[in-house]
Amino acid sequence: MTTAYEQFAAHIAELSDILNAISILKWDARTQMPPGGAETRGYQLATLSKLSQEHFISDKTARLLDAVEAEIQGEDPDSYRVRAVQQTRQYYDILRRLPLDLVGRKAALEPVSEGVWAEAKKNSDFKSFMPYLQQQVDLARWQADAIGYEDHPFDALVFEYEPSMTAAKLKALFEGLKTGIIPLLRAIVAHDRPLEKNLWAHEYPLDRQRAFGLEMAQKIGYDMKRGRLDIAPHPFEISFTRQDVRITTRYSLHYFPMALYGTLHETGHALYEQGVDPSLTRTPLTIDFLGKYPVGGTSYGVHESQSRLWENVVGRSRRFWDCHFDRFREIFPEQSADVTPEFMFRAVNRVAPSLIRVEADEVTYNLHIMLRVELELGLLDGSIKVEDLPEIWNVKMKEYLDIAVPDDAHGVLQDIHWSGGGFGSFPGYTVGNVMSLQFLEAARRDTPGLDDSLAGGDYMPLLGWLTENIYRHGRAYSGEELLVRTSGQPLSVEPYLKYLREKFTDLYQLPEG
Amino acid sequence: MTTAYEQFAAHIAELSDILNAISILKWDARTQMPPGGAETRGYQLATLSKLSQEHFISDKTARLLDAVEAEIQGEDPDSYRVRAVQQTRQYYDILRRLPLDLVGRKAALEPVSEGVWAEAKKNSDFKSFMPYLQQQVDLARWQADAIGYEDHPFDALVFEYEPSMTAAKLKALFEGLKTGIIPLLRAIVAHDRPLEKNLWAHEYPLDRQRAFGLEMAQKIGYDMKRGRLDIAPHPFEISFTRQDVRITTRYSLHYFPMALYGTLHETGHALYEQGVDPSLTRTPLTIDFLGKYPVGGTSYGVHESQSRLWENVVGRSRRFWDCHFDRFREIFPEQSADVTPEFMFRAVNRVAPSLIRVEADEVTYNLHIMLRVELELGLLDGSIKVEDLPEIWNVKMKEYLDIAVPDDAHGVLQDIHWSGGGFGSFPGYTVGNVMSLQFLEAARRDTPGLDDSLAGGDYMPLLGWLTENIYRHGRAYSGEELLVRTSGQPLSVEPYLKYLREKFTDLYQLPEG
Repeated sequence: MTTAYEQFAAHIAELSDILNAISILKWDARTQMPPGGAETRGYQLATLSKLSQEHFISDKTARLLDAVEAEIQGEDPDSYRVRAVQQTRQYYDILRRLPLDLVGRKAALEPVSEGVWAEAKKNSDFKSFMPYLQQQVDLARWQADAIGYEDHPFDALVFEYEPSMTAAKLKALFEGLKTGIIPLLRAIVAHDRPLEKNLWAHEYPLDRQRAFGLEMAQKIGYDMKRGRLDIAPHPFEISFTRQDVRITTRYSLHYFPMALYGTLHETGHALYEQGVDPSLTRTPLTIDFLGKYPVGGTSYGVHESQSRLWENVVGRSRRFWDCHFDRFREIFPEQSADVTPEFMFRAVNRVAPSLIRVEADEVTYNLHIMLRVELELGLLDGSIKVEDLPEIWNVKMKEYLDIAVPDDAHGVLQDIHWSGGGFGSFPGYTVGNVMSLQFLEAARRDTPGLDDSLAGGDYMPLLGWLTENIYRHGRAYSGEELLVRTSGQPLSVEPYLKYLREKFTDLYQLPEG
Repeated sequence: MTTAYEQFAAHIAELSDILNAISILKWDARTQMPPGGAETRGYQLATLSKLSQEHFISDKTARLLDAVEAEIQGEDPDSYRVRAVQQTRQYYDILRRLPLDLVGRKAALEPVSEGVWAEAKKNSDFKSFMPYLQQQVDLARWQADAIGYEDHPFDALVFEYEPSMTAAKLKALFEGLKTGIIPLLRAIVAHDRPLEKNLWAHEYPLDRQRAFGLEMAQKIGYDMKRGRLDIAPHPFEISFTRQDVRITTRYSLHYFPMALYGTLHETGHALYEQGVDPSLTRTPLTIDFLGKYPVGGTSYGVHESQSRLWENVVGRSRRFWDCHFDRFREIFPEQSADVTPEFMFRAVNRVAPSLIRVEADEVTYNLHIMLRVELELGLLDGSIKVEDLPEIWNVKMKEYLDIAVPDDAHGVLQDIHWSGGGFGSFPGYTVGNVMSLQFLEAARRDTPGLDDSLAGGDYMPLLGWLTENIYRHGRAYSGEELLVRTSGQPLSVEPYLKYLREKFTDLYQLPEG
């Protein structure tokens, strides 16, 4: 005698197991697998993906959903049980609505299109990539029509990454950000002077970089009984349930911030995943049904808010280096011989307009994102043609960053996202930045002495608040719901702009106001 | 328009993918996973096992088998195609014949029984383990009845590990071995004198042990583009198709043979797996259907013949140390300062009767195995009662090894196998030893100059012969078929006994004859 909910939960638990197995195979492929294993790993992943699809998009799921919906009627709409059923229904209906022909064509196009893009980027030859990008845009519009939307096709696509976001909200958000960020950037550029010494002229042995980074990760709360740190050329965090949350970073012998801040960034993601309530393990509230992978965080934006909060707001703060510089000096005595904590703070926070998004600093980063999202919006609503992308890209780079793009490899061809058809994922980075300060303000309000504890290198009060108010809920509440529950209002740029203004006015000794 | 064979092959290829995914999850659990991940890893493995079972024991498999059997009629019975279909049919029928109740009770008993055994071993308390061992024996007899046998219930169980082996053949094999080994052992014990120095008093830094072991593994042919070496407390080899074959070893700071010979042993297994014909990837001829895991080697015995050939016959030979001692000395200059290759040869080949199987030398090892198999045979045919096991164990230890067993922890309780119900797996170790020399003799006959190349440290002629005659065939031919194809006769103890006699008569300077 089992309840409808128990049967439903057991069925989804198996889906979660398969998706977690897929993630383990992907992690292994990226960090451990010998190169010869790539071909058969592809087969293994394809078979497991097929099995997961057959498991979820099935009549059995439909029957179980019908039964459990009847059973939970009248229960608290904010309870985990009701949310679990609701979200499963919502994504089940969307996935059922996607035409098989569309899914097949997307899957077939992706590797080809990515291959052409890689070649086009190498030769800075946008024209060869154009027909493939056009196909991706066409498929994305088809997908948006199949999913359905009220206002803008982008709304149907961004739903996968940030369910509470729309094109209209993004446009308003960007206007607010540009108004704050562009003048700040101009002032920084005008007042910039070179640093007195070059920290990156030293060598930082990699094993010691790893030791320092891992020590800092554990200091902010990363639990190594449920984690591990490996090397990957494109660092990432991945969780196979909250009990096994792994991170990766990459190392440069001279430029140690690459590994350190890579580690802290991925640790931010990992703290979110490790903080999910144990009761949500193997439930719909730790599955991304549309992305088809297991994850505890509720959206790209909220996830990114945590990686950036811990990497930038905590890790690139003056007080971080005030607290941990002595330890850094123990590990790197010669390299830090005539350096102060204040100098470290300034060295890891250099702002400069640059061409490449993934190397951008805190101030310019969002301008790179806005530019991309504005282009995506135009491609999807038809106001921008694929062939005009390079020129519009370059014009916007001039307008936002005051920088000339030498060629398309350093411009419109730099990111892989569009070649894979991933429209709608870029906003998460900027939404995350904005959310991070809104959450921090709410934590400050709720937690007397929070800044004192941060200044003392005690991160547990902040981690405790984040776990209680965000992490533990898994995917039960959307980003917008979490913002309203904690800060009392939806997404708002003010706390974030205030943070940027104060930090960089101080750091660059800019004139006030 | 696909053929019946293509449809059959595609179905089994997916089974292979699922089983390989399970193996990857197990490898990860044993070498990489943080401890917290154990619980959910259990769920993931259970779900994938269930899926693999549903995939194979299905009406679809039955339909595909019927169709493909009609299609291949009249083809060469030794061809890979025919063997693939035949074996799939054979194992499908066996697995269909196993009552679900039996399978369920075995699965439920295993973890409980293993837990009780571990506790019993700790306290040297055989009585507490007795009722669980009795249940395992009862289930094993039930399983033998369900599978079916002509002569002895053991025949139905050993089939999983060594399809061409039976109780009758094993008894004859053991008589031959005992007649040769026991007198040799007595002579060694009588002539033994302590070594002049203690090599294990030195420390051997683990990273240098790893480097030397891996260099030797590659020298005998391990392809690191399709392999990797990790650490595990119980070393093992595991393959996720021939393209990704991983090994593990364990390290002792002082006793370097543990890691070196562990590595060479697992490399022997790995060479077999890496040598399978690429066309057999994702086919029935690289799946152990009964054991439910992917493997290219045809049986436990043949697999063990390769690990032991490379570890013992090659790696513990005088000429191995003649060839590689200079390299060893480069890596461990102080530790080997006043040592000769001849001394190394003697030090890694010490023979002494001892209590524990896994620490036994080349001469005594098979006596440990025979003792166990004789007890299994008695348990299964009812001539030995579970309660009498400890006494019979101790009597046989005295008879074969002339050694007194102080308690059951060092006697009948030492191995995990019986607690998990794994009756039939022990013979593989001894069968492998015997096979290894029979194969080597055949290689010698076929390959002029083989011994010269081995003496020169060139292992490619031997590896080439083994790959051509054994490895590439995967599971297409049984151990017995491979022996007949290569040596012209079935399993024969003579080459192995001759090897032991010559090696240890020389090493211990025993009187001839």
